[in-house]
Amino acid sequence: MTLATILPAIEPLDQTMRAQLQHLIDTKTKPPGSLGQLEALALQMGLIQRTTRPRIERPVIIVFAADHGIAAAGVSPYPQAVTAQMVVNFLAGGAAINAFSGVAGVTLEVVNAGVAMPLPASGQLVDIPVANGTRNFAQEPAMTREQALSALQSGAARVRHHAALGTNVIGFGEMGIANTSAAACLMSRLCALPIDACVGRGTGLDNAGLAKKRDVLAAALERHTNAIEPLDVLATFGGFEIAMMAGAYLAAAQARMTIVVDGFIATAALLVALALAPAVREYCVFAHASNETGHRRMLEHLRAEPLLALDLRLGEGTGAALAMPLLRAAVAFVNEMASFEAAGVANRDA
Amino acid sequence: MTLATILPAIEPLDQTMRAQLQHLIDTKTKPPGSLGQLEALALQMGLIQRTTRPRIERPVIIVFAADHGIAAAGVSPYPQAVTAQMVVNFLAGGAAINAFSGVAGVTLEVVNAGVAMPLPASGQLVDIPVANGTRNFAQEPAMTREQALSALQSGAARVRHHAALGTNVIGFGEMGIANTSAAACLMSRLCALPIDACVGRGTGLDNAGLAKKRDVLAAALERHTNAIEPLDVLATFGGFEIAMMAGAYLAAAQARMTIVVDGFIATAALLVALALAPAVREYCVFAHASNETGHRRMLEHLRAEPLLALDLRLGEGTGAALAMPLLRAAVAFVNEMASFEAAGVANRDA
Repeated sequence: MTLATILPAIEPLDQTMRAQLQHLIDTKTKPPGSLGQLEALALQMGLIQRTTRPRIERPVIIVFAADHGIAAAGVSPYPQAVTAQMVVNFLAGGAAINAFSGVAGVTLEVVNAGVAMPLPASGQLVDIPVANGTRNFAQEPAMTREQALSALQSGAARVRHHAALGTNVIGFGEMGIANTSAAACLMSRLCALPIDACVGRGTGLDNAGLAKKRDVLAAALERHTNAIEPLDVLATFGGFEIAMMAGAYLAAAQARMTIVVDGFIATAALLVALALAPAVREYCVFAHASNETGHRRMLEHLRAEPLLALDLRLGEGTGAALAMPLLRAAVAFVNEMASFEAAGVANRDA
Repeated sequence: MTLATILPAIEPLDQTMRAQLQHLIDTKTKPPGSLGQLEALALQMGLIQRTTRPRIERPVIIVFAADHGIAAAGVSPYPQAVTAQMVVNFLAGGAAINAFSGVAGVTLEVVNAGVAMPLPASGQLVDIPVANGTRNFAQEPAMTREQALSALQSGAARVRHHAALGTNVIGFGEMGIANTSAAACLMSRLCALPIDACVGRGTGLDNAGLAKKRDVLAAALERHTNAIEPLDVLATFGGFEIAMMAGAYLAAAQARMTIVVDGFIATAALLVALALAPAVREYCVFAHASNETGHRRMLEHLRAEPLLALDLRLGEGTGAALAMPLLRAAVAFVNEMASFEAAGVANRDA
């Protein structure tokens, strides 16, 4: 298995309908531009779907869960067991992403991408772990290249499953104790930024904890200076949930889905996908600016304008779920609003 | 009729359950504070409703429409006829607020508060105009004190109607050509800010149009320096839709509803309500920061943190409708999420 054999062909965004869509948006009964970011969103969704009547069909959020060897370095205030416990909580419907998926009318899928502790059997869990957690990248690469490739493929396969069922809007969430450490290192290496711009408090480190995390990650980046190619960077610092998510982004863009990008970890996984296939960017909508240090800098790096900024820092895909009603509003105004002409409303300076 | 006889008694927010609600929010399976503004929102709704299980019951948006004599001064790029035409559009379901109310699952009510042109008969329209538009406040007060009081009462009555039907969350929108001019003058006088901090492009004035509007409003403020008391300020510069909305805020706070405040005009109407009854503030949630110049300054004046900032500048209650799913998310996480203890998830530093 090589990277070349699994990389999907992703088409650049088809611009054919841009003028037609823009005219449609501009002639709705409202001052031009007055719906702000929702107008840009409607235009993008129309272009992705190649239609003047964009739709949201069977929206899905996939939460990928996995454990990280770096947790042993004491970079999180929570014990590693929480990853498995939260997967059980997802399956029981008790987590924030369950509540928000319900409000958003989104189908939620939970994937065991590589949780360390045993999980109870459940018909609802997609149980496809690469291994029982990654290795500690403070000491050695988190995973092998083969594991990274396998995870990319597994993530892509989940998206293809939903594409076959008709899904055209998708978001990804994650759970994995210590995964802000993995994401910070991916960001630092892929964006060529110092670790201080990338490291943050995660689930709530105090100042001493943050300083320790920063030193652990700085030393790890120093140890792995040879990891430069995207697949190597992913294998060295990544988690299985991040690798599956990267593969999922690739498959979602190939399937011409609108991709709703969640917070810090999800955007770090996107950095990996973009390093492999830059055209993925045009299929992405950015749900929110997270409160995790580094996320705004990531968004600036991507020239991304987030839809929400609610001081969230939870992950799980919660930001993606909260943004979904804004996508619904964008397609609703395009499909349902009258034009000035049709409604008999005088246009400006009439 | 005097102001004293119609002003409702509004209770300060009952703080009894604050500690209990905060504990409930803090023990949900998430790092403390990680749901950011939604946690503050959930707390506020719990306090307003005096329960640890806040609910959204029969949410409503009322759009008040009226015309403004100041339109004759050439302060809008759209003709005055658009107010009536847009009311017809609302009733036909063709406006942005129709699309967004549908997405948000909100009941929409349209009120003729004082439109200048005749409106076709419609069972859907609440037809309670104070007059066929206000007078031109560049020359004389927009309305009499009696008209202002009547509008306050009519707006309050609409809210009481919905309170009787069980509504506990409400937002207000507006339509009225030239009403950013009225709102800018209300803001300038009630916040004691120079008109330059308050005047904006409205539906899309060019630089010359903006300069003219600024001069017209500066002269009007100069002419009416005697308008100081809230009711006089409202009568001098307000529109009938703004006055009804101010009365609606008062009645909504009295009914202990959660009030979703829309954009520039809606916040100007809130300034009037707050000048009459400051306790209204505690019942307010701020839906969004509008792109209309002056709105961010208004929000700062109120120490308000808006939920959304999507570069909207449309009015109609569109921002309030778009924020409604965030209120749903806030109550959903409080009601549906498991606690660490119930879910068997280890808490931090466990």
